[in-house]
Amino acid sequence: MWLKPLQNSLRKFSTVVRDPRFAKVQDTDIRIFESIVGREHVKTTEIDSYATDWMKAFRGNPPCVLLPSTSEEVSSILSHCSKRKIAVVPQAGNTGLVGGSVPLFDEVVLSVRRINKHFEFDEKSGILTCDAGYILEELDNKLAPYGYMMPFDLGAKGSCMIGGNIATCAGGLRLLRYGSLHAHLLGLTVVLPNEQGTILKVGSSLKKDNTSLHIPHLFLGSEGQLGVITRITMAAAPKPTSIQSAMIGAETFESCCDILRLARRHLSEILSSFEFLDRETMTAIDENLGLKPVLQSNPRFTLLIETSGSDESHDTAKMERFLAHCIDDELASDGVQAQSATESSMMWRIRESAPLAVAADGYAFKNDVSLPLKHFYRLTEEIRKRCSSMTKRIVTYGHLGDGNSHLNITAKEYSKDLYDRLYPFIYEWVNAHDGSISAEHGIGQMKLPYANLGKSPAEREIVRRIKSIFDPNGIMNPYKSF
Amino acid sequence: MWLKPLQNSLRKFSTVVRDPRFAKVQDTDIRIFESIVGREHVKTTEIDSYATDWMKAFRGNPPCVLLPSTSEEVSSILSHCSKRKIAVVPQAGNTGLVGGSVPLFDEVVLSVRRINKHFEFDEKSGILTCDAGYILEELDNKLAPYGYMMPFDLGAKGSCMIGGNIATCAGGLRLLRYGSLHAHLLGLTVVLPNEQGTILKVGSSLKKDNTSLHIPHLFLGSEGQLGVITRITMAAAPKPTSIQSAMIGAETFESCCDILRLARRHLSEILSSFEFLDRETMTAIDENLGLKPVLQSNPRFTLLIETSGSDESHDTAKMERFLAHCIDDELASDGVQAQSATESSMMWRIRESAPLAVAADGYAFKNDVSLPLKHFYRLTEEIRKRCSSMTKRIVTYGHLGDGNSHLNITAKEYSKDLYDRLYPFIYEWVNAHDGSISAEHGIGQMKLPYANLGKSPAEREIVRRIKSIFDPNGIMNPYKSF
Repeated sequence: MWLKPLQNSLRKFSTVVRDPRFAKVQDTDIRIFESIVGREHVKTTEIDSYATDWMKAFRGNPPCVLLPSTSEEVSSILSHCSKRKIAVVPQAGNTGLVGGSVPLFDEVVLSVRRINKHFEFDEKSGILTCDAGYILEELDNKLAPYGYMMPFDLGAKGSCMIGGNIATCAGGLRLLRYGSLHAHLLGLTVVLPNEQGTILKVGSSLKKDNTSLHIPHLFLGSEGQLGVITRITMAAAPKPTSIQSAMIGAETFESCCDILRLARRHLSEILSSFEFLDRETMTAIDENLGLKPVLQSNPRFTLLIETSGSDESHDTAKMERFLAHCIDDELASDGVQAQSATESSMMWRIRESAPLAVAADGYAFKNDVSLPLKHFYRLTEEIRKRCSSMTKRIVTYGHLGDGNSHLNITAKEYSKDLYDRLYPFIYEWVNAHDGSISAEHGIGQMKLPYANLGKSPAEREIVRRIKSIFDPNGIMNPYKSF
Repeated sequence: MWLKPLQNSLRKFSTVVRDPRFAKVQDTDIRIFESIVGREHVKTTEIDSYATDWMKAFRGNPPCVLLPSTSEEVSSILSHCSKRKIAVVPQAGNTGLVGGSVPLFDEVVLSVRRINKHFEFDEKSGILTCDAGYILEELDNKLAPYGYMMPFDLGAKGSCMIGGNIATCAGGLRLLRYGSLHAHLLGLTVVLPNEQGTILKVGSSLKKDNTSLHIPHLFLGSEGQLGVITRITMAAAPKPTSIQSAMIGAETFESCCDILRLARRHLSEILSSFEFLDRETMTAIDENLGLKPVLQSNPRFTLLIETSGSDESHDTAKMERFLAHCIDDELASDGVQAQSATESSMMWRIRESAPLAVAADGYAFKNDVSLPLKHFYRLTEEIRKRCSSMTKRIVTYGHLGDGNSHLNITAKEYSKDLYDRLYPFIYEWVNAHDGSISAEHGIGQMKLPYANLGKSPAEREIVRRIKSIFDPNGIMNPYKSF
């Protein structure tokens, strides 16, 4: 299995030791926590699921898990921890992929999962206010009767929570159509890790409000390092009533980019996904999972394109016209338009099985990087030149429409030699080509050794000083990100 | 004319005096500025247009106007001003409505209008990078050959500059469809007013980048108080090829809100404007400008609805179906769908003439507030109850789709009694009803006396401390906003 090697590879870079500034939690602290949230909401046993991330690659040793149910309880906890210099890790759904939501040592875990009572939806404006502990899918279900949905979607939607989504600026599957969370976030209630345990309400429930610095956006992607998000106000999106899908084959990466441009023009307002799989990914899916491709011609690249709109006949017509343009312009070598929900889900099954297919090779070095389109596939080619002989397979799939590449390098088993051949090369190459070493997963523990790549000393200093405004004692989610 | 009274009313609240901490500009400073930007780019005469806002309501007395052409020149200027404690007002198109871009006293004006050389558009990703001094309309024109446009539009597009748009988080006419600038901004180059004149590059040109705090968003709406924006990276939007317009009459405000909900559902992805005018506005337009209404039935409320899409026949069909629903549900008492660009521009001419029509009454107390829809028109009714006898007309028009109300109270001439009857009542009422006293214009000088309304001491303190990170000497656009 690949869990152990991942821990090893982390250790290779991590020279992190427990910061002696932080107090060790005493029985008296536990009593105080119990007096704040109630005895049954201070857990000291059976806390494995809070101490370990869901990949089981990162594990801490928290003395307790606190389960407050209100901002006021969070305030009392953070006030006490500030005074006592007890380090705190805020945790929502704990579905992150970089170890950002679990302790490294004996930090206390503060879970927001019981902060999930308040839900308010203004049907007139389409604006939602809810507690941080709501599961994304629950929110989607609650909005459905109004004809609305959450404007983003993730694989982890059944367990991730909105507070964590905000703290990590989750990207997901609908970003191409609906934009990042910056497009939707309007207001936040956050509790600050200072001696007062300040409950701070920033922003509003208004789409236009230019009366102050737009502080809520500072918490998007802050990875739990500025404070605990307890309540969110954001815009929901009207639920589309028509979904159309197509798969297109292309023989050059340049054609894929041209097809994307055509999609932006012809599918325009309804384009919601533009996914990419190279032939090597399709081969892995076929060989390892026995899933046959939809496109019979075995093209160099396969694109999965989806639209979300409000009129099926209009959307079908747009899709047909777009596909005709792809053929006429000799960009597509092959193409299939889904004629039913079953055909559409077959296409998505192929796309979504890619991670599983590569993992079945034995061990996969997985990546989540953003790159300008002109460099998007060059990284894959570079890695093939650099270390093909050491690998079983080098494949790339991802969200081409967002410039988000998931390059995977597989081998029969974890190899330190291969690791050293790949890293830090990949991160340095991405940085040198104006990319981002973390497209949507954040820095957490996993990418901390590379977090400063491409960041100027001036930016790092400003980030550090902003952090110290919100978290003067540095107790909030230490040893991670910035 | 109304310019003088506005200055009077400002003075009423403004007890602002020149801060003696700031140095007075000497001849030696002028020589240094000349050595940085060249003698011809340090203006000391004919600077009226820089010293006065475009409404001519605010006027300062700057000793000079500096016209740098690069970030490096801005850096040298800010470094010198920091060391000497010379106050600086950054200025872009100087089209703001709250006096934010002109000095109060003898602050130096730093204009970015010569920082307008760099323009780069990546057709593949739709991402634009450009200097801060580009005029919004120029950018739109440069993007048009690629089939793209700027994702926002303003009345001032012919003279406002992108740097100022970012600094004020400009809203505008397409917000309903494309979202606020938070949805589009990706990266910034800013120059900080510290002794080093730090040139800070934050964010990237990537749609997904979770490697640091998202600092660029802190500059959206910062009103020139954190630093000078010199370069912007943001997403452009594919240009729509089909625009449809309709006017609808409704007899209750509740019906207007229900029609908005129908529009969100049926026009969904193509809905781009949802504008509102009450009967009193239409009467003013008719009486003062002789412009006859499109809707013959003289309805209580008139709505102007526009769609921006990529297929004319689809968009027309959607609009027809939406209008049919409005009639079937007995929400609309009247309605006209524009059959041509001429008919559409007639509708817009009515909407756009509203400010001129009310101004023609003599004097207009103008407002720019956001309100939750349930309170949107209640403010108008409250003001009618409160002071109808003192006024000529009380009208409301605005961007109902964004919750942005422009309540106007007119009289034959400016009256201090009426002013005192209106303010601070309006701002306090808006604040008490979860609204914003500045929807899109910012605080500037004009709303400074009310800037703290509804802001907690904790938020104000955090904003103050963030400001001091970027501007340690407080020289940047003083006496305004926060």
